[in-house]
Amino acid sequence: MRTVIPFDTRAPKRRLSPVLAPAERAAFARAMLQDVLAAMEPTALDPTVIATGPIEAPVSAPVTVDERPLDAVITDQIRSSAPVAVVMADLPLLRPAPLTRFAGTEGDVVLASGRGGGTNAMLVRTTQFETDYHGASIRDHRQIARDRDLSLAELDSYRFGTDVDEPADLLEVLLHGSGRSADWLDAAGFRVAAADGRATAKRSGDSE
Amino acid sequence: MRTVIPFDTRAPKRRLSPVLAPAERAAFARAMLQDVLAAMEPTALDPTVIATGPIEAPVSAPVTVDERPLDAVITDQIRSSAPVAVVMADLPLLRPAPLTRFAGTEGDVVLASGRGGGTNAMLVRTTQFETDYHGASIRDHRQIARDRDLSLAELDSYRFGTDVDEPADLLEVLLHGSGRSADWLDAAGFRVAAADGRATAKRSGDSE
Repeated sequence: MRTVIPFDTRAPKRRLSPVLAPAERAAFARAMLQDVLAAMEPTALDPTVIATGPIEAPVSAPVTVDERPLDAVITDQIRSSAPVAVVMADLPLLRPAPLTRFAGTEGDVVLASGRGGGTNAMLVRTTQFETDYHGASIRDHRQIARDRDLSLAELDSYRFGTDVDEPADLLEVLLHGSGRSADWLDAAGFRVAAADGRATAKRSGDSE
Repeated sequence: MRTVIPFDTRAPKRRLSPVLAPAERAAFARAMLQDVLAAMEPTALDPTVIATGPIEAPVSAPVTVDERPLDAVITDQIRSSAPVAVVMADLPLLRPAPLTRFAGTEGDVVLASGRGGGTNAMLVRTTQFETDYHGASIRDHRQIARDRDLSLAELDSYRFGTDVDEPADLLEVLLHGSGRSADWLDAAGFRVAAADGRATAKRSGDSE
């Protein structure tokens, strides 16, 4: 199935700036993209990366550059190419099994929600849908499906639900990742630090 | 299957104190427990609540009071009653479908990880396992299973993975919950507030 992976090359992962420098954020974002592509390799999902600019590293999938806003890009894809899947590039915990479960879920629209109300992946089998990625997009996408009488399913997946945007998310990569992103964080000095409540990811040299 | 739900009546949900008063935290914790029990009703999971003290509200399952530390209580249950499931009481997004998927997952030990390295549920089919709930417990539980040559599976579930401990978690209940916990938050004035990054839960009267 045709699968679109949007990728921001302009200011990737800005919310990680408290713990990563700009060049580090760009490198880590590419590592996550590569993990997503590697997880798709043994599946029926056939990825194309749609990037806001050229990607400064080899990528194992075709790359299209499109500078328009995300909703315009994705809604175009739905109108021209449904059935189509849209999977975010910052999901380094993805593996073939959850991707296969996703691709096999029935419905005109299948949504996988992310931490904080985002829509981390969708599978759209009708040209009658469009996206609205601003704010708590999972609510808006449910509403758009309802308004258009489309059948809606939601995938229940921790691996799809874990997008990496904020420093607290790095811990999830250390605990559950096994690919380039986890290796990158390890090489950059990040380690799991147990705490009284939830554990955190700490970088060598971080003060307590 | 025998299912144990540990429940803290002494200082429940301390990390929610920035947004909820002590009596509110106790009432919300009970609402979450009731949602977990309601989700189990149509499933093969047969719940018993093991509480640190008496619960000040009717509960639709047997309640045992045991004041010992969590690891002692659960390891005793495993040694005496395996196969046994252990499901945390602060998982208000649980529904019958993910619970059934959990109960049907094969393995001597089945783990469902929670945000921040916790172990939100486990299913133990051998008396040879024991628990260590401190710190990033999912790592420790994996290691204990490996050390004892037990077969290990992990459930990939957003609904199991979403334990409610911190103010940011309340948003997940508003977005994905449909039971007493969501109703309780709504009645207490909490609403979804869209933001530039992740959305948040705001209470009426909160300053921006």
